[in-house]
Amino acid sequence: MSSTPPADGAATGFRRMWRDLEAMGRDAGSGGYHRFALTRTDSDLREWFEGECSDRGLDVTTDRVGNQWAWWGDADAAVATGDPGVVMGSHLDSVPDGGAFDGPLGVAGALAAVDRLRASGFRPSRPIGVVNFTDEEGARFGVACAGSRVLTGALSPDRARSLTDSDGISMAEAIRSAGRDPLHLGRDDETLARIGTFVELHIEQGRALVDLGHAVGVGSDIWPHGRWRFDVPGEANHAGTTRLEDREDAMLGLAAAVIATRRAAETHGCVATVGRVHVVPGGVNAIASRATGWLDARGTVADAVLRVVNEVREVVHEFDGLVTQESWTPTTDFDPVLARRVATLLGGAPVIGTGAGHDAGILANDGVRTAMLFVRNPTGVSHSPDEWATADDCLAGVDALASVVTDLAGAGA
Amino acid sequence: MSSTPPADGAATGFRRMWRDLEAMGRDAGSGGYHRFALTRTDSDLREWFEGECSDRGLDVTTDRVGNQWAWWGDADAAVATGDPGVVMGSHLDSVPDGGAFDGPLGVAGALAAVDRLRASGFRPSRPIGVVNFTDEEGARFGVACAGSRVLTGALSPDRARSLTDSDGISMAEAIRSAGRDPLHLGRDDETLARIGTFVELHIEQGRALVDLGHAVGVGSDIWPHGRWRFDVPGEANHAGTTRLEDREDAMLGLAAAVIATRRAAETHGCVATVGRVHVVPGGVNAIASRATGWLDARGTVADAVLRVVNEVREVVHEFDGLVTQESWTPTTDFDPVLARRVATLLGGAPVIGTGAGHDAGILANDGVRTAMLFVRNPTGVSHSPDEWATADDCLAGVDALASVVTDLAGAGA
Repeated sequence: MSSTPPADGAATGFRRMWRDLEAMGRDAGSGGYHRFALTRTDSDLREWFEGECSDRGLDVTTDRVGNQWAWWGDADAAVATGDPGVVMGSHLDSVPDGGAFDGPLGVAGALAAVDRLRASGFRPSRPIGVVNFTDEEGARFGVACAGSRVLTGALSPDRARSLTDSDGISMAEAIRSAGRDPLHLGRDDETLARIGTFVELHIEQGRALVDLGHAVGVGSDIWPHGRWRFDVPGEANHAGTTRLEDREDAMLGLAAAVIATRRAAETHGCVATVGRVHVVPGGVNAIASRATGWLDARGTVADAVLRVVNEVREVVHEFDGLVTQESWTPTTDFDPVLARRVATLLGGAPVIGTGAGHDAGILANDGVRTAMLFVRNPTGVSHSPDEWATADDCLAGVDALASVVTDLAGAGA
Repeated sequence: MSSTPPADGAATGFRRMWRDLEAMGRDAGSGGYHRFALTRTDSDLREWFEGECSDRGLDVTTDRVGNQWAWWGDADAAVATGDPGVVMGSHLDSVPDGGAFDGPLGVAGALAAVDRLRASGFRPSRPIGVVNFTDEEGARFGVACAGSRVLTGALSPDRARSLTDSDGISMAEAIRSAGRDPLHLGRDDETLARIGTFVELHIEQGRALVDLGHAVGVGSDIWPHGRWRFDVPGEANHAGTTRLEDREDAMLGLAAAVIATRRAAETHGCVATVGRVHVVPGGVNAIASRATGWLDARGTVADAVLRVVNEVREVVHEFDGLVTQESWTPTTDFDPVLARRVATLLGGAPVIGTGAGHDAGILANDGVRTAMLFVRNPTGVSHSPDEWATADDCLAGVDALASVVTDLAGAGA
């Protein structure tokens, strides 16, 4: 760190945290991040989080599924008096070759907001928490927001434990390898009771704020969205010696499903994507005996999204395949009263919807009073090494977070 | 081994070798084999080969690319007198989740043929060799028959060294990890000079011998065949927040190329297959920024095969992608005089063509006098855990191999 006294401690602290995070899980070639749950990189990031919290004198506890909670103030005493805390935070994991901002902005931003509040002499009337949710992207085990879904019970402990990664390692095994016990997963009322309000700061994953000319916006809702897996069967055989008419080539069903996905999304005004596939045996000279694809479908209207899935399902059925729902989240409305209050507090920030799922949405669906703040994304690109926001806009996000928490955790709130 | 004296030493030896090989590189779930070049399993298989040769008092030498050669008799003295040896053999590696027979039948069969020749009191008038070719399937580095192609110079040392596996490990690094030196690859005239005739025993990869009612057949030719890689570019972005019209989704080009492959093969009377794909970043909620597929195309007429590739290329170009040839082998005719002689020797065995490439084809294209023997495959299935031949037919193949070598290496040959 520079020995020059910082003009603005929170901004300097944010920049230092950003530099510290920069190298962790970064691919030197692409510049993208590979920060998957329950890996060595994940463990390094969690250790980093604990260190930052410890430097600030915040007590860190880890809940049963692995979400990390840091508290300024006595969270349990506040539960006892019926006035639970205000929690900020997001996640540190990434999609494969993801960007630096999706997740970390909300965690480092929350810690910088704590710095700002303290530097301003703020005395909270209720506890303030910072959370690092585990496995938000679902990059390794296929279910997004796994940490918050297990916390609320939206993902059952048995299903969570039995999810497997591409090497066939179950989440239960991975949790055990990380030194924790997978036996006691499940809805965690004790932890949930401590969250009076949750505020997640996140980079925008589209260009609405660019078009509106605002650095920070407030979330209104998350579109209905889900993930489905389709499995097409085939028969392994030699690519050079098996007549076309004797083949059952699983790759053909996969290709047809990919094309049907795009066509159905266009028809029904949704977005739908096949971004991950797995083909076995995967030999250049072997006909595929099984092809699996994952369908991500979203839209403003739940029925339209489900119609997209049904059209893909029809094509998969033509190839004797199966479609399995891995997750489904209906429209999630963030608390509209809170959203208006936050927007007003921020001087008339725009209120915008999003097609992306977030832990904030899982908590909102469980009845937690929840708000989201978005930071402008000049290109709209996300889940890519090119994901980017300016430092000024990130710091505007930190300011906004500090203002909202001052309002929600202040004496008059 | 049983302590009962075997009625037939070669048959008992073959069965024992088969049992020894059975567990090596076998997937307990599928029953298929994962025996890739320059892996731990490959090293175990090579050690097994050395042990079997050593038990028979055969001297094993390893050439510069890693092919293992075992000799009964002085191979170099025979070169000096202008009467080089007769070599049998095949390979021990497999495709992903491959069968037990493709490759190992020709290696274990050759060793059993040596046993049979010795048991019969045969005194060869020229040396007899047994070879285990390295990396015939090209499962790891993408180029089939890499061991024989480097031996003859059909694959240049620089290209071979720079081939990479799916983890980005180059063949040069893999050779070094296996304890050998990748610097001195290249055409190996000293080794080639020792091969007067090459005979490869192999399971048939189709059902011609079933239809013809013969346990053993003789190879006439290998169809022209090749491998091409196609790379489709895209732009990584968030699957939930990127409008369809703003997307460059590499997966769509991959799917179109897969469908074009099948359609073009039907049009031109060839077989063509996409059995391996690689999509990055590979996240369920990330639009693909690059999709790669491998095209395997073969047919009886070279021009027709190349027309298939051109049609796929046109589709890949529509998606701004590139098609790169990884290998191309024109029609390979095995020595027709030798084929007729072998067929007659075997009591009128049928002479059949094949769509599958083999090390025997690479040697034949280099001018080596070469023959192939095929063993009946009841289902025609190959490159699959279901690949299978009866023990009786395998032993008939060993008998045939012993007869052919008696003829070619005998006093009167």
